[in-house]
Amino acid sequence: MRTLVLGGDGFCGWPSALHLSAHGHEVTIVDNFSRRRIDDELGARSLTPIRSLDERVQAWHDATGRDIGFAELDLAHDYDDLVDLLSTVRPDAVVHFAEQRAAPYSMKSPAHKRYTVDNNLGGTHNLLAALVQVGLDAHLVHLGTMGVYGYESVPVDLPEGYLTVRYPDRDGHEHTRDILYPTQPGSVYHLTKSLDQLLFQFYARNDGLRITDLHQGIVWGTQTDETVLDDRLINRFDYDGDYGTVLNRFLVQAAVGYPLTVHGSGGQTRAFINIRDTVRCIRLAVESGAEVSGRVRVMNQVTESHRISELADLVAQTLGATVDHLPNPRAEADTNDLSARNDQLLGLGLEPTKLAAGLLTESSDIARKYSDRIDHTLIPCTSYWNDRRRAEGTRP
Amino acid sequence: MRTLVLGGDGFCGWPSALHLSAHGHEVTIVDNFSRRRIDDELGARSLTPIRSLDERVQAWHDATGRDIGFAELDLAHDYDDLVDLLSTVRPDAVVHFAEQRAAPYSMKSPAHKRYTVDNNLGGTHNLLAALVQVGLDAHLVHLGTMGVYGYESVPVDLPEGYLTVRYPDRDGHEHTRDILYPTQPGSVYHLTKSLDQLLFQFYARNDGLRITDLHQGIVWGTQTDETVLDDRLINRFDYDGDYGTVLNRFLVQAAVGYPLTVHGSGGQTRAFINIRDTVRCIRLAVESGAEVSGRVRVMNQVTESHRISELADLVAQTLGATVDHLPNPRAEADTNDLSARNDQLLGLGLEPTKLAAGLLTESSDIARKYSDRIDHTLIPCTSYWNDRRRAEGTRP
Repeated sequence: MRTLVLGGDGFCGWPSALHLSAHGHEVTIVDNFSRRRIDDELGARSLTPIRSLDERVQAWHDATGRDIGFAELDLAHDYDDLVDLLSTVRPDAVVHFAEQRAAPYSMKSPAHKRYTVDNNLGGTHNLLAALVQVGLDAHLVHLGTMGVYGYESVPVDLPEGYLTVRYPDRDGHEHTRDILYPTQPGSVYHLTKSLDQLLFQFYARNDGLRITDLHQGIVWGTQTDETVLDDRLINRFDYDGDYGTVLNRFLVQAAVGYPLTVHGSGGQTRAFINIRDTVRCIRLAVESGAEVSGRVRVMNQVTESHRISELADLVAQTLGATVDHLPNPRAEADTNDLSARNDQLLGLGLEPTKLAAGLLTESSDIARKYSDRIDHTLIPCTSYWNDRRRAEGTRP
Repeated sequence: MRTLVLGGDGFCGWPSALHLSAHGHEVTIVDNFSRRRIDDELGARSLTPIRSLDERVQAWHDATGRDIGFAELDLAHDYDDLVDLLSTVRPDAVVHFAEQRAAPYSMKSPAHKRYTVDNNLGGTHNLLAALVQVGLDAHLVHLGTMGVYGYESVPVDLPEGYLTVRYPDRDGHEHTRDILYPTQPGSVYHLTKSLDQLLFQFYARNDGLRITDLHQGIVWGTQTDETVLDDRLINRFDYDGDYGTVLNRFLVQAAVGYPLTVHGSGGQTRAFINIRDTVRCIRLAVESGAEVSGRVRVMNQVTESHRISELADLVAQTLGATVDHLPNPRAEADTNDLSARNDQLLGLGLEPTKLAAGLLTESSDIARKYSDRIDHTLIPCTSYWNDRRRAEGTRP
């Protein structure tokens, strides 16, 4: 099948594009290289030495004989080019990773908040409008986030997108209704994924678009079965305070003898997934598109939940490191419980890769191998959620 | 108090600005004249001969001795100017009408969908980011729409923004939670107001912004106590297929002997409010800002509900007209029930102006007075919600 991968040069997009190509998809990557430009803006770079997309695609051809197409395009601003691309390629599926994906980056400044809204909402809405305009019955697979559910403690195992609720009708009788789970996003980034949900709901209802929204947990790990085939295929690995996700950040910190930076008490519980499972989930979602019609399919793309302090202790014990508790830059509950259903992806055949010392070591080995590329000054998070958090975080 | 009126040159914004000024507010209007430019785009114009904003403000000064300030600014794109304005004026309240407000216009083409999302979301998010940046504790009063609740039949009197729901927790016990009413917007325009709700929820939680969101019904009528003071103050009156709201459209149609255009069966029920009540509600909302803290205050700005076919019959009988049933360009339920709570604005002192023959005659007199300005070709709605509706509506 013909599959577009929007944002296919990024951390999840690149290994997903390779995995789909390895499994016979005719893949075309669409990207505007915004992630590489943000590295330049932040003075940061991937821990791993990633190659240009041209080199990456050439390496994939050399390793497997398979070709991946490419179109450089800014989803949020090159609407006519997007329409042309969809009309020409006529994809069966569109995988949409092309959103700014870091919560701290989205809260850095008013300009970063505005960029995140403009890029993510503008891009996603352009895609929906273009699919309708071209009259394509492509299956849209979008990368959402578990953060749309919010990180308050709730007394339920998080369902997959929808919640069945009851309330009294005007005659006092019980009324039952299935609703989108009430969203409580905790950053402008998470907010844009909540807004996306409403865009999807509308376009599915009004235009019959077929859409799967994947609420992904925090990704850890770096390599996949495909990226290990050639050094030039290596995936990016972010460790900086904006883009470094918590477990990967801990692994780098342990590798270079930097104390593990736990924000607040570490009582926050989050859902996780290994990058190898991410790429499999994407394929399972794409290839089950025939099941999607009517309302948006929402699946939780997670394999397990952990408390941050427990992760820090695990990394500290496994790899040897100290733990440092810092003021939390985020406005969020200091402690929460969280468990999430993932029945749908399990039902499609996902076999979870659970957190285990062996896999920690793999990432840790990469961190050590490239430790000379690490800039320690980029490790702390310097984005604060509001004035109060900034005051707490910058107190001398 | 110092009050900014964003979109203060428009149909609701202009009479609201006058009403606030008449009641002692130091009003500054902010507008980019997009509504006048859309008239040019559509080859349409207000039934009433509206003056330039300069003339309007001068006329207000002549009639009352009161001054209204003005800043020309595009909320969605002139962010730095907005920050400067907020820093300079330091308003106590910001009334936000500056969104594209016609559902048919928002569905005309991909470009119109994209404009509506960019203008409405971009503008509203810029405003929120700017209020945080400037550190203003201004009370934000936003014009929402009843359309966020959706127009499916529901078994409840629509509550004001929030719904108390119950669902079983993981131990099977009953859990109760207050949630934003599950939104079901029926057009891209309505969708943007649903998205706004999530922006407000986030900025109220994260930054403590004080926000009132007014879910307004369909406005009818033209003049207010203030706009009648001088011919140069006359309010705009839209009758075209994009911007003409249903009752005002019927009144114009009756005045010029055009059959009343009912879309579908006319079994759609909608909530209504007279423009005189709109301006009073805005003032009641603004002046009760001290009550708002914590979660967003949502109030239903409506006074009564009617079935479209009943409105058509009322106008036909009162003013003499025939009724024409046309294919519905909108993808919506052909028939629905609707009733809405409006306890909060009643509690603040609103005395509803109900639909009555006398008021119909007032608007009808205006329509007859300016009937030579009416272009009959602009009356039909030519925006279709999707391909199926277009096929039904354009069948020869």
